Amino acid sequence: MLTLNRDSQEPIYQQIKRHLRHQIETGILAPGDRLPPTRDLADQLGVARISVVAAYDELKDEGAISATVGRGTYVTKLGDSPPLETNPTLGSLPGSARAQASDLRDLLRLAARPDVIDFSQGTPAEDFLPVDMIRDAINMVLSRDGAAAVAYESPEGYAPLREAIAASLHVRGIESHADEVLITGGCQQALDLGVQALMNPGDVLLTSNPTYAGILDIARARGVTPVGISVDHDGMQTSTLESLIIEHRPRLLYVAPTYHNPTGTVMSLHRRRHLLEIAAAHRLPILEDGVYESLSYAGSPPASLKALDEAGLVLYASSFSKIFLPGMRIGYLAVSGRLYQRLARVKRAADVCTPALNQRAMHAVLESGRLWEHLAYVQKACLIRRTAMFDALTQRLPEAQWSEPSGGLYLWVELPADGPTATELFMEAVRMGVGFAMGPLFHTDGQGAYHLRLNIAAQDADQIQEGIQRLGKAWHKLAADYAAPDRESVPFL
Amino acid sequence: MLTLNRDSQEPIYQQIKRHLRHQIETGILAPGDRLPPTRDLADQLGVARISVVAAYDELKDEGAISATVGRGTYVTKLGDSPPLETNPTLGSLPGSARAQASDLRDLLRLAARPDVIDFSQGTPAEDFLPVDMIRDAINMVLSRDGAAAVAYESPEGYAPLREAIAASLHVRGIESHADEVLITGGCQQALDLGVQALMNPGDVLLTSNPTYAGILDIARARGVTPVGISVDHDGMQTSTLESLIIEHRPRLLYVAPTYHNPTGTVMSLHRRRHLLEIAAAHRLPILEDGVYESLSYAGSPPASLKALDEAGLVLYASSFSKIFLPGMRIGYLAVSGRLYQRLARVKRAADVCTPALNQRAMHAVLESGRLWEHLAYVQKACLIRRTAMFDALTQRLPEAQWSEPSGGLYLWVELPADGPTATELFMEAVRMGVGFAMGPLFHTDGQGAYHLRLNIAAQDADQIQEGIQRLGKAWHKLAADYAAPDRESVPFL
Repeated sequence: MLTLNRDSQEPIYQQIKRHLRHQIETGILAPGDRLPPTRDLADQLGVARISVVAAYDELKDEGAISATVGRGTYVTKLGDSPPLETNPTLGSLPGSARAQASDLRDLLRLAARPDVIDFSQGTPAEDFLPVDMIRDAINMVLSRDGAAAVAYESPEGYAPLREAIAASLHVRGIESHADEVLITGGCQQALDLGVQALMNPGDVLLTSNPTYAGILDIARARGVTPVGISVDHDGMQTSTLESLIIEHRPRLLYVAPTYHNPTGTVMSLHRRRHLLEIAAAHRLPILEDGVYESLSYAGSPPASLKALDEAGLVLYASSFSKIFLPGMRIGYLAVSGRLYQRLARVKRAADVCTPALNQRAMHAVLESGRLWEHLAYVQKACLIRRTAMFDALTQRLPEAQWSEPSGGLYLWVELPADGPTATELFMEAVRMGVGFAMGPLFHTDGQGAYHLRLNIAAQDADQIQEGIQRLGKAWHKLAADYAAPDRESVPFL
Repeated sequence: MLTLNRDSQEPIYQQIKRHLRHQIETGILAPGDRLPPTRDLADQLGVARISVVAAYDELKDEGAISATVGRGTYVTKLGDSPPLETNPTLGSLPGSARAQASDLRDLLRLAARPDVIDFSQGTPAEDFLPVDMIRDAINMVLSRDGAAAVAYESPEGYAPLREAIAASLHVRGIESHADEVLITGGCQQALDLGVQALMNPGDVLLTSNPTYAGILDIARARGVTPVGISVDHDGMQTSTLESLIIEHRPRLLYVAPTYHNPTGTVMSLHRRRHLLEIAAAHRLPILEDGVYESLSYAGSPPASLKALDEAGLVLYASSFSKIFLPGMRIGYLAVSGRLYQRLARVKRAADVCTPALNQRAMHAVLESGRLWEHLAYVQKACLIRRTAMFDALTQRLPEAQWSEPSGGLYLWVELPADGPTATELFMEAVRMGVGFAMGPLFHTDGQGAYHLRLNIAAQDADQIQEGIQRLGKAWHKLAADYAAPDRESVPFL
């Protein structure tokens, strides 16, 4: 949201220009994005049109935007980097390249500095990772299997692991045979293979909005268009689903119904059934992300969509990354019917197979039963850390509102709309030594300016206290500058 | 090639039908392929048109082909499986699905039976795999790095491994900085990322013909069209390259100049320079596959294209799979300029990162210097096994001709064109307990009917003797049935 300060020494057109440049530099406005006509933006802002024209002109001079008569004004420049189109060595590039280049996530790397208490990542805490368990499993597997443990595996995956996964799905009410389980490089590859097998470039992907940032990465890389569906306390809404299907003719719907990333919500059983009913009526395949499903620490969630699915429309993707070892990169896709063989072929084209040793070690861990002890420990620790984060926020940033997740890794925080945006806050927060993920990262449409995602499990209780204290300090510092009385808001920006 | 036996008891139309059905079942003719008009095929075969009409009619009744007035006759059936288009649960499928379904490689699985001596795969022998070395490396890494070894890695890869790879490339004359090395899931993912980053569906990919079967998998999965360039004793020809570029406007050229898979040839230095010159003139990026380059056992190959490249047009893909541990799935892509960041983004969308533990273990092995000792052992063993295979072929299948590779894993064998095709031989060979890869697997255009690829390193000398004896027996058995005097050949089929 663009806020103008009419009391400021800075001319209005400079404020507009500065705001737009900031949005371009942070990736909120991407190369190829169209800016509103000067007259419309001037009307929205309640300023003279000349102010907007002047702002656009200076940005044009800087090469950040360009205008073509009759076609409008477009963003051409990507933050610091020169535009990809001028790459002198590799000729012209496919169309999807521009969109990929626009990436706010690169900013997150600033939070990886050692002096930053980082709540931004989607990873469990390092002290949760059972290094000894995996060491034992690898050594056992190498002794038992020898060279077979380091040779090629079939594209479908190591058969005993597929059986063990099918058995664990059975416990959760999902009837899936080992022949319907495809081992993948983490849940990310499971999602990407599902998109690749079912979609062509230009197709529409329905998704919750906000959604997992990695599915937006996939959409950009595969050239498919994400269309968002709002989320409330009961998870992704289903009331507008049918009209969206009729309007957009999507090829696939992506959703994480349980412990949704980033909001932490759980989709109600009623909505799950409603979603499945509508999908069945329209023969719309559903890509269900179950990666946080095991990570429950306050009550049990409803059955997964895959377990409730009677029409055979659900592809279930998950992994062991969030509850065990992200760096092992073992995920899977459970899918019935003839689609399975096609997925296996795409998998083979993509990387031949997931590493044999990692698969066999993961299987050994599952067989030993030690994973479930470990999971109980992780669940308990998450609950403790969630409480620590509630307490710290209440104390240090009471102006904000936040979710109360019953599982998963994330707290979804909403900042007051009359203070700094999450992206503005991020820069200041990193300077003060705390990192988080900005709301727009998770949106299909650049919304979420006042939201941020905190990983509750990445830091211990002391670090949480310290980190949230820094966050509160950063916000209060910026909010003080926002306290000018005469301001106007423009929903567009 | 379709050969008709006019002395046979079997009616001509039945012979035509049997041949077509065989080609459909083995995947040489894929669903969607168009059959020649009956009149044309009758002319080619020198038979009455009614014979072809009758053959087509019976195949139509069996559901293997279908005809639409004015559009021609098409293959509809895929071997044993029902056509994907009838999938009852997942709606209509994107166009590339049909092509993926056509896959002769599935037949190769027959060769994986334990009683079969298998020369078909692209993998080193199990006794080459240094299990102890990797066990030591993994244990060392887990002790040294703890949780960091099993957490997420950056999409670009573990920095010290990228540095070690850059250093090893430097030794081979390739000046590549660690920031230009992207770690991938084996060489296959390196190739796939290169194709994804530079090509859109419908684009043309130039490739040697024959070529690596995995690049044809990628072409199918990504919807790009491979156009082949012939290979002779000096590797891929460059004389027709310029006219192919002008005709097809390709986006990318894929080539493995050194120890080419499947022919084992080495592209001459002259041709390498010629290729680079033409590519530079047309700004055509080259995806170079260097995966066999270290596996030399009779002399040194010329410098890689990447080392000779002055125009910055070469993406160099390789891995440690062929000389070390295929199941670790560690490959890389060395690429200069701004393309690198785009590749890293596609990598992140595809699977976030290559497993941290595998990368760190591979780095430890490189640092220890033990990999190079191991490589010397593998090179020596390959030379011994190559000689064993030469001897066995001379003794058991003198009717064939074969390549004399100075490196790499493969012998490329040409069968006499008046005997069985490689695919016909495969079925009989597997029955007799020996497996190989059929020529058409490696061709962009279904050619290679009389070629087969043997892996020289997959079996020890005794198994080579026994396997080639079985192969000779299978060929001689089938060749006897081909000895009828009155036959005609049709180049089309």
